[in-house]
Amino acid sequence: VPSEVTKVGLVGLGVVGTGVARLLLEDADLLTSRVGRPIELAHIVDIDLTRDRGLSIPDGLLTDDLDRLMNDASTTILVETVGGTTFAKDLVLRALCSGKDVVTANKALLAKHGKEIFGVARQHGRCVSFEASCGGGIPLIGPLCRGLLANRISAVYGILNGTCNYILTEMLGTGKAYADAVSEAMEAGFAEDPPDLDVGGYDTAHKLAIIASLAFGMSVDYDRITIEGITKLDLTDLKAGEELGYVCKLLAIGRRDDGRLSLRVHPAFIAAHHPLANTWGPFNAVSVYGHAVGHTLYYGRGAGQTPTASAVVSDVIDIAIGNAGRTFATLRIYPDVTESPTYQPIEEIVGRYYVRLMAHDRPGVMAQMTRVFGEHGISLSAIMQHEMPEEATDNAVPVVVLTHEAQEGDVQGALAELSQLDALTAEPVCIRVVEEHEEF
Amino acid sequence: VPSEVTKVGLVGLGVVGTGVARLLLEDADLLTSRVGRPIELAHIVDIDLTRDRGLSIPDGLLTDDLDRLMNDASTTILVETVGGTTFAKDLVLRALCSGKDVVTANKALLAKHGKEIFGVARQHGRCVSFEASCGGGIPLIGPLCRGLLANRISAVYGILNGTCNYILTEMLGTGKAYADAVSEAMEAGFAEDPPDLDVGGYDTAHKLAIIASLAFGMSVDYDRITIEGITKLDLTDLKAGEELGYVCKLLAIGRRDDGRLSLRVHPAFIAAHHPLANTWGPFNAVSVYGHAVGHTLYYGRGAGQTPTASAVVSDVIDIAIGNAGRTFATLRIYPDVTESPTYQPIEEIVGRYYVRLMAHDRPGVMAQMTRVFGEHGISLSAIMQHEMPEEATDNAVPVVVLTHEAQEGDVQGALAELSQLDALTAEPVCIRVVEEHEEF
Repeated sequence: VPSEVTKVGLVGLGVVGTGVARLLLEDADLLTSRVGRPIELAHIVDIDLTRDRGLSIPDGLLTDDLDRLMNDASTTILVETVGGTTFAKDLVLRALCSGKDVVTANKALLAKHGKEIFGVARQHGRCVSFEASCGGGIPLIGPLCRGLLANRISAVYGILNGTCNYILTEMLGTGKAYADAVSEAMEAGFAEDPPDLDVGGYDTAHKLAIIASLAFGMSVDYDRITIEGITKLDLTDLKAGEELGYVCKLLAIGRRDDGRLSLRVHPAFIAAHHPLANTWGPFNAVSVYGHAVGHTLYYGRGAGQTPTASAVVSDVIDIAIGNAGRTFATLRIYPDVTESPTYQPIEEIVGRYYVRLMAHDRPGVMAQMTRVFGEHGISLSAIMQHEMPEEATDNAVPVVVLTHEAQEGDVQGALAELSQLDALTAEPVCIRVVEEHEEF
Repeated sequence: VPSEVTKVGLVGLGVVGTGVARLLLEDADLLTSRVGRPIELAHIVDIDLTRDRGLSIPDGLLTDDLDRLMNDASTTILVETVGGTTFAKDLVLRALCSGKDVVTANKALLAKHGKEIFGVARQHGRCVSFEASCGGGIPLIGPLCRGLLANRISAVYGILNGTCNYILTEMLGTGKAYADAVSEAMEAGFAEDPPDLDVGGYDTAHKLAIIASLAFGMSVDYDRITIEGITKLDLTDLKAGEELGYVCKLLAIGRRDDGRLSLRVHPAFIAAHHPLANTWGPFNAVSVYGHAVGHTLYYGRGAGQTPTASAVVSDVIDIAIGNAGRTFATLRIYPDVTESPTYQPIEEIVGRYYVRLMAHDRPGVMAQMTRVFGEHGISLSAIMQHEMPEEATDNAVPVVVLTHEAQEGDVQGALAELSQLDALTAEPVCIRVVEEHEEF
């Protein structure tokens, strides 16, 4: 029995778009046999008609005429792999208004304009699928919208940027300085040039906004996410953390405590035995804690041509068989229909802190420094001072302090005061320690 | 707008059933608000009407009269949490024939009778959902049926039995002997008494049959799975493996090589840095390798009341909103509509092997042993012989050998010959080494 064909239009033939085209063209038979109906790539739209993408594209498929796709009512799914938040936004809204469902891998777009885009989709009886927007090929949006639906989720902790994780892995693994690891990542194609969106933590924050919206069933405001990148990390601290049993990762953290959301992206020390700590190189992983399921974790390649395309094509299938539309229309978890959260101010979060102070090696300095912590109500669980390194030129030794649980506001106050001390030869370095989240 | 109620009947109020009842009763408002329609637990059927399950059950809900549920046509979903393969099978078939969709956590049932059950469901236009059958609360069936659907999956490697993983973790962590770790696991409630279904590898094999069917899109025969449990594992070997950079886990392995399936459950050494190796205690984890997505991994609690119930309730929701039925009716990946695989005989699998020989410490013995390996075409990559332990009473020292890649048949031949040597004081111990699977 021949079934109805589902026709797909793809806009943007970059890295991810090429991967999507590759899977839809080269694996057409596989998909048809599994889905029980053909999925046909009917249009590929890009402004560059000549660049070699290492892919054999049938004649007449690639065009720079977006209208050809938009005016083809028989093409019911538009895949947006353009990126950015201006043209892509217009494109997605136009597609929805003209009756097409949309698949997008665009985290920046959804983090900033998700609420509006979902609202327009709902108005027009269409849906937006975005499995590829977070964690590349890892099925992550799927579990949040399906497998974990019986849970009140209390926290998500994610390594969501492969570039940062690659850089941190290289630093720790080969003893490279941050700047060298970044340069190498750019050469290896694991980082864009400039790498700011990744290393600054913004890409991770985009993904956190999307994940937190679904996990907590709240309309999350991207601008309320506290963001710190990895640009100030020093190999010294990664090594010191390792000695203490921690691995440093750029973490996206979303927590619900007493009804308030805390959303932040920053480098964090996590216990070496936690599965997140054992996520190396360009891999991503996300821990999700639910009141019924406890701790679950999802791991895989967070970027790359075919991994991301794998997620896009799974969304296409989900739309083709009618499930995505029904999920979107039915479940009340998308940010256009959920409420805004109350946010916990960053000053009020509680945790342990790693602090490194570069101090002159002279009498009384240790007392001065520890006094400042005490005056801010912070008690210390460990202090490490090694011998002065031979290469030290400024007569300064690193003193590493690990606090007991303390409030962020108090720690920031202590750091501000510490940085005024004459005995310090550099700004204090502070990395938050993230303890294993309670499961039930 | 009040939406139609979905009515659910639950059969079997044991550990998992009680968890399901708890979530449906205590979190009814949460579920209604998310799903956009009420999900009502309309019947609970169990033969034991009096036992205290630590759950407040509304009057009239619990009954020992199965017919009351079966004859209630307005109850459209039956949740089977009875376990076993006899009564449960009749129950599921009867429910399907009387027009009810079925949710089950019963891996033994699906491993042995899945093909028949899915066929009956299809005949009657119903569906069977079974997220809870593998990996407890971990969304795993979901990704296989949705998020990974664009992939040709080449391999799955899973830690699928929390009891075994708890025992192995205890042995390695606290230096307990196998027998002590098993006793302790039974006392702690992590193992059944007797523990044979778990420690013998059968429970893991049930789950492998289900996962492999979906992952490879094949109608897998449970009886073709090679099964070895953890009952013969010795702490000596776990420790020796650790020295070599490996962690020993009971692995479910499904691989497709050159169009043939290899399905097996056995203890295996995996590299300590692999995320599967960092799965401790009662946790489960499954690695899935797809041609587009590469390596993905799913981690969480593989058993327990609320984790398993979390998966059951997610299935109930999926049926309630109509997606599960459509998925089942549409996708051609269920064993009643897929082909039987060609199996790779276990003798033909290729890998590296850890072998421990207890040998008399006298001249010529090492040459004797290594000659046997050589005559079977097996080359050795490492040999370790420590000093004789002080407590040794039989003048025997452990010699640990790590082979290069070899064929299982050759290794078994060598082991059979080795066990005939006078110089050996005990049967050789052999543990397969599982290397990191190639991603693309």
